[in-house]
Amino acid sequence: MRTLPFAAVLSAVVLIGAAPPVAPPSPGEIVAKAPAAAWRVIPPEDLLILTLANGARVAIELAPDFAPVHVANIRALARAGWFDGANVVRVQDNYVVQWGGADEAKPLPPGIVTHPPAEYERSAKGLAITPLGSPDAYAPQAGFAEGWPVASDGRSAWLAHCYAMVGVGRDMPPDTGSGAELYTVIGQAPRHLDRNIALVGRIVDGIEALSALPRGTGDLGFYEKPAEHVPIRNVRVAADLPAANRPRYEVMRTDGPSFAAYLKARANRRDPFFVRPAGGVALCNVPVPTRRAP
Amino acid sequence: MRTLPFAAVLSAVVLIGAAPPVAPPSPGEIVAKAPAAAWRVIPPEDLLILTLANGARVAIELAPDFAPVHVANIRALARAGWFDGANVVRVQDNYVVQWGGADEAKPLPPGIVTHPPAEYERSAKGLAITPLGSPDAYAPQAGFAEGWPVASDGRSAWLAHCYAMVGVGRDMPPDTGSGAELYTVIGQAPRHLDRNIALVGRIVDGIEALSALPRGTGDLGFYEKPAEHVPIRNVRVAADLPAANRPRYEVMRTDGPSFAAYLKARANRRDPFFVRPAGGVALCNVPVPTRRAP
Repeated sequence: MRTLPFAAVLSAVVLIGAAPPVAPPSPGEIVAKAPAAAWRVIPPEDLLILTLANGARVAIELAPDFAPVHVANIRALARAGWFDGANVVRVQDNYVVQWGGADEAKPLPPGIVTHPPAEYERSAKGLAITPLGSPDAYAPQAGFAEGWPVASDGRSAWLAHCYAMVGVGRDMPPDTGSGAELYTVIGQAPRHLDRNIALVGRIVDGIEALSALPRGTGDLGFYEKPAEHVPIRNVRVAADLPAANRPRYEVMRTDGPSFAAYLKARANRRDPFFVRPAGGVALCNVPVPTRRAP
Repeated sequence: MRTLPFAAVLSAVVLIGAAPPVAPPSPGEIVAKAPAAAWRVIPPEDLLILTLANGARVAIELAPDFAPVHVANIRALARAGWFDGANVVRVQDNYVVQWGGADEAKPLPPGIVTHPPAEYERSAKGLAITPLGSPDAYAPQAGFAEGWPVASDGRSAWLAHCYAMVGVGRDMPPDTGSGAELYTVIGQAPRHLDRNIALVGRIVDGIEALSALPRGTGDLGFYEKPAEHVPIRNVRVAADLPAANRPRYEVMRTDGPSFAAYLKARANRRDPFFVRPAGGVALCNVPVPTRRAP
């Protein structure tokens, strides 16, 4: 399968006397034509809207099934207005953008679990994983569950550090990240962080407001001067916004035929530009499709 | 190996009565301590210096052993001043930044091979590949040769589309890319492009001048208005610069002990932050170290 040439497929079509070959659809065309049933709505309770001081908006889907304590903290922090006036403090090229955190020097609101458990993995039980179908360098199994990129060793399963995933910054002790300091991935998937840090969600819209920020020139990409900080106007749980102002997003279901066709097309590009389909694909090179709800 | 816990290593040290364990070095520490013999200098003939109109400089190492005709074209284009006043015309988030090309609407200088061969792969003969040591989703073998990330099927070998790699834009027919239109990868490795397009080098310094540019809002991330274009002051072959102004860069040799230690540390992070080394690593999550020559 790996090196099946596109030409061989064309010849087969010609041999059986079919009509002239039509270019197979690209992954984008498959997504565009997916029926309504291929999508699930992100519950407004699981959707955070981060608005920068300049008005740019970033939508984040939370993953309570993978990191429930951290996600509860983040919702509570948003509801207490804790992130309002916080800053993007770190932009490291090909790695992460980070905001909030200890640099804000403001106390956490009451009710926050300051030392949450290390929610780095969960039981694989009850989690139906659509297999990637290609080998993964980091885990015995990789695939998609409930719309998320995951890896598994059969007993446990965990979210994978793909582009746009959101995690919780922490210090050396594994239980030091409350959720007040968050980061998102803006480069090659740093999968070595999997199971070393709590992933809590992903950006589903607007990541370019973060990924195109100037890189920090300090160690690890931290901005060296407060004047470089990028201020956050506020962070809100979508459920708390008036219905008229509440953005709605959908994620493609990863257990249905549309996603199966999309995954296959990502691993075997046969749209016209391609002369050699790869016959395989990396987990983080299959971004799960998301969209504004129609 | 995959899940060998860090704790087990510590216990072993304690059991044999050694001194208190010292944290193993991080990949960065291994690179910082690598001896001079671990590095090779980039020949000035293989080094392009792209300077944006705003003065920001990007250094690109060319790969003549993999795409000799395209590389000769690019050197000739630079020497003819063809890129001077050209523009960055496309910035697609999590994908590529692209400059030059047909949009410039200026004729190619004489001597350019306008339809170069499809230099997408080369013979694996004579190419010593240091194996990655982890499975690759895209090819039977992956590793490093002459300082480059490569994949191979045993007969052929090809450069891999990792972050910062530079390739030649082309139209549908595979032989349409002269080298006047170039792109670099600024996101998750689009390895599905391997063997579908000619890679000709990589950015070794200054990629943030491109990766942090505003994303284009047109189809495929093209800038919609000429006013959004990011002008290029000039592109020079380093060999043509006066010696005093000639930047010198080095690449870590990928066939020596320093790189072996670095590769092992990238696949098994044991520096203090990490609680669970991965036991594996993806090809493009092992950036080959480069530096300004000391």
